[in-house]
Amino acid sequence: MLRVGVIGTGMIGEDHVRRLTSTLSGCRVSAVTDVDAERARAVADVAPGARVHDSGEDLVRDGEVDAVVVASWGATHEQYVLACLAAGKPVFCEKPLAPSAKECLRIVEAEAAIGRRMVQVGFMRRYDTAFAQLKRAVDAGTIGAPLLVHCAHRNASVPGHFVADMAITDSAVHEFDIVRWLLDDEIVAVRVLKPRANGHGRDVQDPLLILLETAGGVLIDVETSVNIQYGYDIRAEVVGESGTVELPQAGNVVVRQSGGVTALIAMDWRDRFRQAYDVELQAWVDAAAKGGATGPTSWDGYVATTISEAAVWSMGTGSRVPIKLEDRPVLYAVS
Amino acid sequence: MLRVGVIGTGMIGEDHVRRLTSTLSGCRVSAVTDVDAERARAVADVAPGARVHDSGEDLVRDGEVDAVVVASWGATHEQYVLACLAAGKPVFCEKPLAPSAKECLRIVEAEAAIGRRMVQVGFMRRYDTAFAQLKRAVDAGTIGAPLLVHCAHRNASVPGHFVADMAITDSAVHEFDIVRWLLDDEIVAVRVLKPRANGHGRDVQDPLLILLETAGGVLIDVETSVNIQYGYDIRAEVVGESGTVELPQAGNVVVRQSGGVTALIAMDWRDRFRQAYDVELQAWVDAAAKGGATGPTSWDGYVATTISEAAVWSMGTGSRVPIKLEDRPVLYAVS
Amino acid sequence: MLRVGVIGTGMIGEDHVRRLTSTLSGCRVSAVTDVDAERARAVADVAPGARVHDSGEDLVRDGEVDAVVVASWGATHEQYVLACLAAGKPVFCEKPLAPSAKECLRIVEAEAAIGRRMVQVGFMRRYDTAFAQLKRAVDAGTIGAPLLVHCAHRNASVPGHFVADMAITDSAVHEFDIVRWLLDDEIVAVRVLKPRANGHGRDVQDPLLILLETAGGVLIDVETSVNIQYGYDIRAEVVGESGTVELPQAGNVVVRQSGGVTALIAMDWRDRFRQAYDVELQAWVDAAAKGGATGPTSWDGYVATTISEAAVWSMGTGSRVPIKLEDRPVLYAVS
Amino acid sequence: MLRVGVIGTGMIGEDHVRRLTSTLSGCRVSAVTDVDAERARAVADVAPGARVHDSGEDLVRDGEVDAVVVASWGATHEQYVLACLAAGKPVFCEKPLAPSAKECLRIVEAEAAIGRRMVQVGFMRRYDTAFAQLKRAVDAGTIGAPLLVHCAHRNASVPGHFVADMAITDSAVHEFDIVRWLLDDEIVAVRVLKPRANGHGRDVQDPLLILLETAGGVLIDVETSVNIQYGYDIRAEVVGESGTVELPQAGNVVVRQSGGVTALIAMDWRDRFRQAYDVELQAWVDAAAKGGATGPTSWDGYVATTISEAAVWSMGTGSRVPIKLEDRPVLYAVS
Repeated sequence: MLRVGVIGTGMIGEDHVRRLTSTLSGCRVSAVTDVDAERARAVADVAPGARVHDSGEDLVRDGEVDAVVVASWGATHEQYVLACLAAGKPVFCEKPLAPSAKECLRIVEAEAAIGRRMVQVGFMRRYDTAFAQLKRAVDAGTIGAPLLVHCAHRNASVPGHFVADMAITDSAVHEFDIVRWLLDDEIVAVRVLKPRANGHGRDVQDPLLILLETAGGVLIDVETSVNIQYGYDIRAEVVGESGTVELPQAGNVVVRQSGGVTALIAMDWRDRFRQAYDVELQAWVDAAAKGGATGPTSWDGYVATTISEAAVWSMGTGSRVPIKLEDRPVLYAVS
Repeated sequence: MLRVGVIGTGMIGEDHVRRLTSTLSGCRVSAVTDVDAERARAVADVAPGARVHDSGEDLVRDGEVDAVVVASWGATHEQYVLACLAAGKPVFCEKPLAPSAKECLRIVEAEAAIGRRMVQVGFMRRYDTAFAQLKRAVDAGTIGAPLLVHCAHRNASVPGHFVADMAITDSAVHEFDIVRWLLDDEIVAVRVLKPRANGHGRDVQDPLLILLETAGGVLIDVETSVNIQYGYDIRAEVVGESGTVELPQAGNVVVRQSGGVTALIAMDWRDRFRQAYDVELQAWVDAAAKGGATGPTSWDGYVATTISEAAVWSMGTGSRVPIKLEDRPVLYAVS
Repeated sequence: MLRVGVIGTGMIGEDHVRRLTSTLSGCRVSAVTDVDAERARAVADVAPGARVHDSGEDLVRDGEVDAVVVASWGATHEQYVLACLAAGKPVFCEKPLAPSAKECLRIVEAEAAIGRRMVQVGFMRRYDTAFAQLKRAVDAGTIGAPLLVHCAHRNASVPGHFVADMAITDSAVHEFDIVRWLLDDEIVAVRVLKPRANGHGRDVQDPLLILLETAGGVLIDVETSVNIQYGYDIRAEVVGESGTVELPQAGNVVVRQSGGVTALIAMDWRDRFRQAYDVELQAWVDAAAKGGATGPTSWDGYVATTISEAAVWSMGTGSRVPIKLEDRPVLYAVS
Repeated sequence: MLRVGVIGTGMIGEDHVRRLTSTLSGCRVSAVTDVDAERARAVADVAPGARVHDSGEDLVRDGEVDAVVVASWGATHEQYVLACLAAGKPVFCEKPLAPSAKECLRIVEAEAAIGRRMVQVGFMRRYDTAFAQLKRAVDAGTIGAPLLVHCAHRNASVPGHFVADMAITDSAVHEFDIVRWLLDDEIVAVRVLKPRANGHGRDVQDPLLILLETAGGVLIDVETSVNIQYGYDIRAEVVGESGTVELPQAGNVVVRQSGGVTALIAMDWRDRFRQAYDVELQAWVDAAAKGGATGPTSWDGYVATTISEAAVWSMGTGSRVPIKLEDRPVLYAVS
């Protein structure tokens, strides 16, 4: 029975507390903390026996915490993940691993110094059934070698505090990770194009069309639309030499009504990826129970943030920005 | 240039006049008639040079009429078709060939006595691209031998003069013909089941579930829903030994909007089958120009009406009604 | 931590052992048994700490078993469920509750005598996301009052020991339960029709077309095809007064390849309903931990088996068979 | 009865001869010509009464030719269209209007000098039902203002004489025209990106990703894949402020077979756009019978070729190429 401490009990943190308490196997939540102590106490109520700590550092030190979930504000990720590594405790860190490549790199170096994997980064799409099928089809050669990927990442709307960079750092960062994983290939350049802005987006430049190039010559276009009103919709089609393979339209019931045949779509990302979050966190629990980690690595987190930084630069300048990575530690060598 | 006379210039008759005048090749409308003379004159205006006759018989006699389209009220079909046969003029008769099997049989006998095909019955679905693909797939053995067919025939709503029998004689009669054609098999029994009635249907028993059995042992279920509000929708799936083949959802644009992915559907049967009507009538024009006929025969019209009569009987009694046909004249032998 | 004993470690029993051990929250498998002792021991290996019993009765008596999953051969269900009731232990019983209505009724009476729910029957579809959406749409009045339901239950193939009745007692029994639940309505009559047999089915009469009538006047047609080769496919469309709502085609990736746009479908029912099984059994664990039961009741199990018996009778005789139920104990009153 | 002369009786020319002879209303083919005289004579056989000319100029001069279809090799278009304009005969010219912007411009100037429309360019997609629906939805504001368009233009394979530029000048030129028409907006810049090449394409750089920018700020990405093996597939999705609208998957029958649900797709562009060609040419016949022209203009042909030239330049240099147009003659003012 893995005893998990959860740092950050906002929307996603609370979801994880419920998941660890009532859905997953082999774990329970033994401690929580949040900058909003009252909220931390409220969330602790759903996890019988969970204590509330004043700080993330206190939680990491707690002898009844075997492993840690970091779901706090991105700017605090580095300090908590490093604290976990120092304490020798497996850690699941929500994406982004950290807001800057420099911070991510310090985590990478700390883990590499330990010499074994301790960190899993929260790129949950890798655990989604549909994305897994997509990868299987690509790997099986069903469509020949991949040449292009078309992606769209659409949100019905975004909260008031949303700023333009977040379409890259919060939304498209998922695509940055997933295409690397889908293609087993590295991104070498990025360019961000800005069409006419959506009137629903107030001052935010939305949508964006982001172009990625891989070392292997695959071109990827990613549409981000963060105020598209109609729903939360994630699209991806891989174009190969002899065919394409595409995510299904999420499998909801089909209504014939008022002149149309309508498949309902989710309005909320948590509905779309609920099962993926379950599978993702169960995989972490299983690996953490053995003292290690699996899935997306610190290195993956570092690369995704590096691409985000380049994309933000490109959004400002309009230019094509090459991606420059540090040397990959042997710990993260592709098997 | 085939000179066509059109008897009956109601909705479908007017459509055919426009089609013969402005869309099809090798024909023009030289004469029209209707019980509503004013309407006949109005429709004649869209066909340059068309004269207006006082009666169908006058029209058939007209020396400038080479061939005739009968689109008048069903009860008058027999007299006009027989007049055409007597005059040796090819005739296209809208479905049903006639309201009673007895009338249909007199047409069959008259044409059989002539010894060559002069009549085409207006079962336009045989000319629809999607139904043609369905038949090709069945004939190709794509799904093995057919075992079951599931059909649905749905209208958004029906006019005030609609009575319960018409769900059979006007709607399901299309399925009676099309499954015979799809399967190259004969219907041997029918049973009509009546679920709870749709509140939109006033006094009409709607929907119906009609069960057909073929000589070869195929079972067919046909839903008729004549007040289903949402649109005009024709569904058919043939279930075989190793798979199924199904009509596509009619290929309209797909809108992502308000929480749904919606394929638009037609509200009106003329939109759904516009192209089929064009192809059907062109086939008739081409055959009539050579003095003959092709496509659905008088015999097919007789059989469809016979099944309708049996189905109406079953609706009244709740029993399974066997279909009994007269001997098939050699003219209509299956090739 | 609910300690679960599992009786029967065949395919589905082994699945449940893995699920209770590695996927679900708040439970572990403390004991297993099977007529094949060797198989029981092999399955026990995947559940750390599980002991192996010689008989189901021994397992039920085990002080370290808080609740029981019955996944043995149907003919043994009654004795094990009654043993659990006698021992006051919550029990999850795979469908059918028992092969005959008489046996089911004895379970109903035993549970009713206790006066609170102890039994959950394994109709997992009620926990499937798509069926849940279907019910929500029907309950919300999206399509008006339901009038017809079209179902298909298709298996790629069936094992050598399959006999004709099993298309009813093993396959269609799921539809018998799910339409009662979908419609909140009771089945009052059944009729089974037999089309031409599928050549892949050897001596088995396959497919069947099963017609159900509800007290409220809804008509349901159920196709069972147990040798259809192409895959495992469950279809359902509810037709209402103003529209229809239909299960989605299961949401797998879409491949464009070799002249077609193909959505992959499962070959195996465990793939199709994997998530439903997880949700179903978690619901049982949660209720059993409180000493009770939720979901499909003994009464539902009794009714489903009663309909199966009537359907088997109809298959033999070709007649419409009315369903006659005993009085419903107050314990199972519809809320 | 419009008497049409057809210059060029290759694949598309022969199609048009058949269409004018056997499908369309109000026209017949009175003359044909081709550089391959034998082929011209063979094609003339399908058009009763058609004479064969030695040259396009002879055909244009023929007193029994009221209007002309130019379906010859692109390099000859200018001379034949100018000949028609000089003779005062309406002309339908297959796309491209001419291979260079300079040639197109001479046609524009000649027609503008006449002061009324005489030329229709063969951008048949504007007459396709699905594209028409797409435009209607955009114009109706269903999705708010358009912001992005995603297009794909895929051919199963291309003939041996295909060279890289043709993916732009023969394929993407259709998208250049259709997005201008869909959006009522002008293209101001183009950039062509080259991913890894498809191994099926021999020396041809395939696929391409072409980026277009409009005056109104809409961004369009166009994938051209000319060797994708699986079929002929035209995709387009317009992304607006509150939703998207997308071409349907072409409405062919759906086969359930071998582990998949497959909608068949065309292998050949003539199957996909057969109906659009009929509607397009009927519109031309109707307008030509009145001495004029409708649909895509010479100016549209000039603009499409100008964009093609810029795209070819971009493919060579990798740079973003602005589009510079001459002043638009008042004849082509947007209504």
